[in-house]
Amino acid sequence: MSVLVVGSTALDSIKTPNAENPRLLGGSASHAAVAVSFFAPVRLVGVVGDDFPRRYVKLYERHGIDLEGLQFARGRTFHWAGEYEVNMNNRRTLTTELGVFEHFTPTLPESCKRTPFVLLANIAPGLQHHVLDQMQRPKFVVADTMDLWLNIALPDLLRLLKRVDALVLNDSEARQLTGEDNVVVAARRIHRLGPRYVIVKKGEHGSLLSGPGGRFVCPAYPLEKVVDPTGAGDSFVGGLMGCLASGRGSVEQNLRRGMLHGAVVASFCCEGFGLKRTTRVTRQDIEARVTELKSMTRV
Amino acid sequence: MSVLVVGSTALDSIKTPNAENPRLLGGSASHAAVAVSFFAPVRLVGVVGDDFPRRYVKLYERHGIDLEGLQFARGRTFHWAGEYEVNMNNRRTLTTELGVFEHFTPTLPESCKRTPFVLLANIAPGLQHHVLDQMQRPKFVVADTMDLWLNIALPDLLRLLKRVDALVLNDSEARQLTGEDNVVVAARRIHRLGPRYVIVKKGEHGSLLSGPGGRFVCPAYPLEKVVDPTGAGDSFVGGLMGCLASGRGSVEQNLRRGMLHGAVVASFCCEGFGLKRTTRVTRQDIEARVTELKSMTRV
Repeated sequence: MSVLVVGSTALDSIKTPNAENPRLLGGSASHAAVAVSFFAPVRLVGVVGDDFPRRYVKLYERHGIDLEGLQFARGRTFHWAGEYEVNMNNRRTLTTELGVFEHFTPTLPESCKRTPFVLLANIAPGLQHHVLDQMQRPKFVVADTMDLWLNIALPDLLRLLKRVDALVLNDSEARQLTGEDNVVVAARRIHRLGPRYVIVKKGEHGSLLSGPGGRFVCPAYPLEKVVDPTGAGDSFVGGLMGCLASGRGSVEQNLRRGMLHGAVVASFCCEGFGLKRTTRVTRQDIEARVTELKSMTRV
Repeated sequence: MSVLVVGSTALDSIKTPNAENPRLLGGSASHAAVAVSFFAPVRLVGVVGDDFPRRYVKLYERHGIDLEGLQFARGRTFHWAGEYEVNMNNRRTLTTELGVFEHFTPTLPESCKRTPFVLLANIAPGLQHHVLDQMQRPKFVVADTMDLWLNIALPDLLRLLKRVDALVLNDSEARQLTGEDNVVVAARRIHRLGPRYVIVKKGEHGSLLSGPGGRFVCPAYPLEKVVDPTGAGDSFVGGLMGCLASGRGSVEQNLRRGMLHGAVVASFCCEGFGLKRTTRVTRQDIEARVTELKSMTRV
């Protein structure tokens, strides 16, 4: 079954201690949609400006991403510039130019409204609501978010939590949202805010699922070298969603399987700038690494 | 088969934001030996002073710990006092009174010298060497260490690494020892220093085994409340060593099984001050939590 991905479509200029890469294809929806594409049909909803390189459109197309919901607007594409320290857990934003994103309204084409799986990738909660308002009885809705929305759009986000099946967020955001230092307790508190499933991302330490079927502890794929972690979280949730939409097991089984696959797509994402590495891997590469990751947790 | 544990035997005064507990039974060897005792016969090598409470000797005995190697010296028992912050990953030492530990030489009784499994729990590397010098062809030697020894006894520690089968250390120590930020690479570098097996402890994020049979990623048991993490690392390595000595599989299998069991004993350790909770659990309690932990990694 297919997945609708709404989120940001951006150009990312990324500086690390070793290299500088201007205007890469980025944004939460780009990373997530490419990740979904390995597993399930995917439709992208977003907006780009008239400076958006044609080759990036082709890249989406090569991944079979349906672009009927991608708006081409007058103006400049959302541009983010950031710099990573030697310890890549620390980064700072250098520039944020919203461009056409500033007045973006994700109006869905008719063809998108009945998509069974909806991934509300990281974007303002108000826009996530707007997408849900247009959907016709989706089967499963997953929302991602970030600290920015906890800071400036908390009421919208809290309303959103009543409307989604699963919330994905990182550990520091889980702490911020609940005021609780212990991640296990924080996850439990988030259930009370709405979502049946809560997935806490912990970067190199893996991720934790809390749901009606119990807890699942998912390892990260151990990487010897991280080139650029930008988009790893979006790749994770994209891989997860693709597996959920294509899996034949129970939701619980598909989520667990999805987290492992998401962790692997995220590991590939970290091995190159922007989407450079992810777009060169095959489903077989992913499955090989999933097999390896499974063997690393087998007793 | 039985396990020889050498390390510190101490009185710990532990302050947390919620409570204060003076002169609890503590020390790396105490925590490790109690943890081993759930799985295998264990002999303790250490030293205590004449202020060492009789009830703590009884506690060792209740756990079937052979005390022939425990020296009773004139003077005061090693006393450590520490304080934890609200975030229990942060602690500071308030007092360290070495007492009888200052002139401790771990001279082994004859009965100890042929013990097949040797756990060099956290103690000065010079003393760890001294124990190994007396052992007669041990089957498997595991060493634990801490940042203090990296700072003040690095040459001794580096020599020790050539003599042990496995080194257990935490992630920040692995970084310090190798000068490498990435834990996966750090583990690989430690192999070159000697040990065939390297186990990196990551606290609430679990642990990582690197060895000839590949990598194993072991989750921590997710705890909702940590009362006192003192001794958790020692409990982990003790549980691990007990399983290794009692297991029937290959070293690799026993280590993986041991890490899971060690993680569970460590989780019990964190649920009470000092050894209070650990000494109240049964093997059945441990196995129940191991089953639960395994189910949390099953896809």
